[in-house]
This record gives sequence, structure tokens and C-alpha cells, in this order.
Amino acid sequence: MYSISQKFSYMAKNCIDKAVILAGGSGERFWPLSTPERPKQFLRVFGGESLIRQSVNRILGLVATKDIFVVTSKELVSATRKELPELPAENIIGEPMRRDTGAAVALGVSAAKNGVVAFFPSDQMVGDTLGFRKVLMKAAQIAGKQPKIVTIGIKPTFPATGFGYIDPVTKRFVEKPDLKHAKTYLKKGFLWNAGIFLAQAETFRGAFAAFAPELKTLFDWPNINLSKVYTALPRISFDFAVMEKFRGIEVVPGDFGWDDVGSFAAFDKYFPHDTNSNVREGPCTVVDSSGNICVARSARISLLGVNNLVVITTPDAVLVADKSRISEMKKLFKK
Amino acid sequence: MYSISQKFSYMAKNCIDKAVILAGGSGERFWPLSTPERPKQFLRVFGGESLIRQSVNRILGLVATKDIFVVTSKELVSATRKELPELPAENIIGEPMRRDTGAAVALGVSAAKNGVVAFFPSDQMVGDTLGFRKVLMKAAQIAGKQPKIVTIGIKPTFPATGFGYIDPVTKRFVEKPDLKHAKTYLKKGFLWNAGIFLAQAETFRGAFAAFAPELKTLFDWPNINLSKVYTALPRISFDFAVMEKFRGIEVVPGDFGWDDVGSFAAFDKYFPHDTNSNVREGPCTVVDSSGNICVARSARISLLGVNNLVVITTPDAVLVADKSRISEMKKLFKK
Repeated sequence: MYSISQKFSYMAKNCIDKAVILAGGSGERFWPLSTPERPKQFLRVFGGESLIRQSVNRILGLVATKDIFVVTSKELVSATRKELPELPAENIIGEPMRRDTGAAVALGVSAAKNGVVAFFPSDQMVGDTLGFRKVLMKAAQIAGKQPKIVTIGIKPTFPATGFGYIDPVTKRFVEKPDLKHAKTYLKKGFLWNAGIFLAQAETFRGAFAAFAPELKTLFDWPNINLSKVYTALPRISFDFAVMEKFRGIEVVPGDFGWDDVGSFAAFDKYFPHDTNSNVREGPCTVVDSSGNICVARSARISLLGVNNLVVITTPDAVLVADKSRISEMKKLFKK
Repeated sequence: MYSISQKFSYMAKNCIDKAVILAGGSGERFWPLSTPERPKQFLRVFGGESLIRQSVNRILGLVATKDIFVVTSKELVSATRKELPELPAENIIGEPMRRDTGAAVALGVSAAKNGVVAFFPSDQMVGDTLGFRKVLMKAAQIAGKQPKIVTIGIKPTFPATGFGYIDPVTKRFVEKPDLKHAKTYLKKGFLWNAGIFLAQAETFRGAFAAFAPELKTLFDWPNINLSKVYTALPRISFDFAVMEKFRGIEVVPGDFGWDDVGSFAAFDKYFPHDTNSNVREGPCTVVDSSGNICVARSARISLLGVNNLVVITTPDAVLVADKSRISEMKKLFKK
């Protein structure tokens, strides 16, 4: 990742003035590998770097390190600083409580102050980093010249029900659909909403003022008592608060092997399989077993005659789940 | 168990002169709960006592504590002494290597010296301790009066293929049968061979002299170099070496809820189930899962949407196996 960013940095040296990485993950969907204390953005599997580390590496050269910000929860500030030691410590900003992406974006705009500000999720995978960077450069050019919010629309590879969509013609956002609607959206050429968007700080501020004035108080940061202000803020997503109402949306299509790494099922996509279609990390003995995702972070795991399971062990927890039921993980936390 | 032995000890105070518990388990079938270092006889589940502890408790009062011996492997002497601290330390005898039950019984006879000697496995479950003790008293009476080897024949509850059988009419032993033969044996009234047998020490010595003279060298114990002698001994079971040839066999039938706890499947028989037929020990969270055996000896286990698995976690190992495949456990050790 470093080598790519170095090799192609001449392409658009600091074409983005400020970058804000939104890192508010709760850690539930990758439990027990991730936890509330080490949520998804810290996930590091199969010898790779953490997702938030990858998110920063991916934009190196397009924006100066000193101009990269992270908005995360108060509790994760310290872990995030440790994970991204090259960023100025004060650029890692902790929200006192969860108030969805509306508040996080407003806080990020306030921290960024001015220039073209780009927002990125902290927990995505990108297959084609060079492609990603080219698309970003194009988006940054548009955002730099016009008072628009430029969003990246990902070319869908299947009728996903787990992502929102953007109609690139009308520039309208639509929420996560059911399968039937998802299929229609694909036929109509709708794109996935990857949660990547850029605009001048002024444009963001104007959009908040017009459509979500209740979040404007955050623009006085750091001269406010954040805990007090947050208590009174509405829980509202940036898409719902601003993007669905703002009329100056521009969509730049992107096709760079994007995925949001939503659950353990993604492991099957990204990691190598043994001859029995098992994905393994750590010491795993496998006999007559296939299609399993097996991650041993504590003692050796031995599988005998089992199929299509997700088996994850850490020193603190052991998960044994049917792969097809992994989206119901939250049921475990209710118990 | 103690209370039963105390309550009924008047029934036959020390009717057995010496007891020898054969504790040579390898620990494979209950891995990872049991290991070569902590084999099956040390298995302690669901708050109960270890199987070897239960084996001793079951005969308390029928034989004096100072007259209970254990023949185990050299490596397990120390752990066995710790588990059974009330036995004289020198009564726990370690074999230098595995030579099957032929050698272990000969060594036990030598340690017991004289009187009526009873042999017991170390890894069995008995449902009806009082019934067990009554049968033993009867067997001890016969063995005390006649130069016979008295064996307990368990009334079968199903056509087991995992046990040997005894024909109580001809007093002949037959090896573990296939299912077809097992069914025939049940019709013929054959009994299970539980590996419990009694005789006067002299009778045992005579039988060895007649049918397994190669094991006679052990009668000079402790005045022999056990390691040297064992190296030269044949690997032969006591049933094959002596019982199948000796003509002075007596069979006392027993029906006291006997089981040899052969594998994790036995957990389904002995331990309580939740409303979804799961057997659980330790912290286990179970969602939409049924028929599982779940033993958490390290971190909490969470099951989601899985059925009929054996999930065992210890600080050293994690086993996830299909319940129907549990008899193939050895495949894991070959890897």
C-alpha cells in the first residue's frame, strides 16, 4: 500500500485538502475478533494490516498526513492514536456518545475547517488502490471547483441488500432495499453508496445550515462542551439529514473492488482457502471438514466432520456459528 | 457416595481383602478434556468427582482403604496419588510402559499378595451403587470359598458393539461383536464383560502359571527391575491371556446402571439437558442451537444456529466435532 501511494503520489499530490475518517464501529459483527474495545476498524486478519490502517494508507499522498482526521468514540481515541501514530494526536477526535453519522460529519467539518474535505469509512476493503485514487482525484477536482457534495458511486457486482444506492441520473439516495428492489436498481444502473463523499468545508456548512440546523452547534467546536452538546443532538445519519435533501449532489462512479467487509462471510471472499474450502488463520487441525472459517487466536482449534461453520477463538471468547446465520450475531449479545 | 458407603458398610465390612484399580487410560476419547497427562479416569465434569475418585468411593467399606491399589502408568503415579490422597502412596504403582491388562493384573496380584483380590476399571459409571455393592459382596463370597475367578456380567440394555460379552452358561468370553452378533448375544442371554473380576491371589497366580507363564516374572515384584522386565513382556489382555482359557470361571450377573463412559456421547446419557437438548458445562450462550454437548473450560462459548456438535474448550485446545463423528477422534491425533 505504501509503495503504491509513493509510486503514484506524483499523480495528484495533496489534491484533497483534508480527509476525515469516520471510525465509529461497534465491533458486533466480527465478534469475538472485534469487540466494543477493539471494533471492526482495528480488525487485522491473516497477517494483514488493520482496516483503519489500510484506510489511511490508501489516501497517503492524496492528502498530507497532518491533514488526516479521525472521528471516533471517546473510548477509542487512545487505541486509534496508537494505531495511527503518524497522525497528529489532536487529529483523533472522540465523540462523547453515539449520535450517528450526522453529528460525526459535522464535527469532522469543524475540525477540518476549510478546503476540500473528503470523508471515508474506516472499515472498507479496496481491491484496486490505484483505481480508487484516480476516482478520488476526479471527485476532488469537481469538489474544488463547484459548491457541490461529490459522492463516489460504486458499480454494483450483485443486488446487495446490505448497502444503500444512488441513482446517478437524479442524484437521489435510496436506503438499503429488499432483494426485489435491489434487482430493479441494478437494472436501472443505480450505484452503491460507499459512504465516501467530498465537498468544500463551506459547502458542507451551508448544507447543514439548510437541512440539519440542529447539528450546526458543532461548528463552534472546540469552543463548546462536547458532552453537553452531544446529549441534546438527534441521532440522525448524514445521508438522511443532508444527502437526501441537498440538491447539489454530484456522483462520480467508481469500480475499484470495493467492499465494506460486513461480516465473517467476507473472509471467504478475501482470504485463501485450503483444498476443502476452509479459510484458516492460526493453528487449526481440520479432518473431514469443509467450508469453514476457522480463526484460532488462542488455543489450537480441531475440527472433525463439520461443515460451513464460523469458528473463532480468542482468549476471551469462543464463537461457533453456522455460516448462514452469521448475520444474526446480535442475538448472542441480547442473551 | 460417601453417605451410601457409610450407611451400608455394615452389610459386608471389608468382604474384599484387596482391591486393584486398573488405570491405564490414554486420554484420547475425551480429548481435549482428557489428555495423555490427564486421561479419562481423571475426567471430572458437571461438578462431579473424577471417575477414578468415584471408583474408589464406590468400594469404600467393602475393602479397607489401606488395601486399595492402583496400577497406572509411571507418568500418572504422582497425579493419581494427588487425586487419591487417602491411599498409601506405595499402593499407587506405575508401569514403566504399556503392556495391556495381562501385565497390569499380574502386577496387581503381586502387590495384593494374598486374600480375595478384586479388579476394577478406573473409568466407569455406576447408577445404582447399592446394587453394585450387593453384587460385589456375592461375588466376594464365592471367590473366598472356591478357587474360581468370579466375573461380574452386566445385563445388557442394548446390543452394544463396544463391549465384550460373557456367556453365563458356558462361562465363555467373546470379543466385541458386530451389530448382528451383538443382537444374537442379547437373545441368548449373554452379559456384558465389565472388566470386574475377583479371585484369591493364589487362584490368579495359578491361572497365570498355567496360561500366561511369560507374565509370571512379575510375581517377584518389587524385587525386580520393572523397566527391564516390562520391555520383554508381551502385549496381551488379561481376557485373552487367562479368562478365555481358564476353566474355573464363575459369572455373577449384575444390573446396576453400569456404563464405561466410552466417549462424549455418554454425556447425553448422564447429564441434564436444557430445553433444546443441549448439555452444557461452564459459560455457554446458546442461540437457535440444539443437541450440542458444550463444555467451556476456558472462555465463554457462544453457539449460533448449530446442531449436534461437540464443542469443548480448554486453555490448551478447542474441539468442534460432529457428534456422530466423535468415535473418529483418533484421526485428529494422526494429523
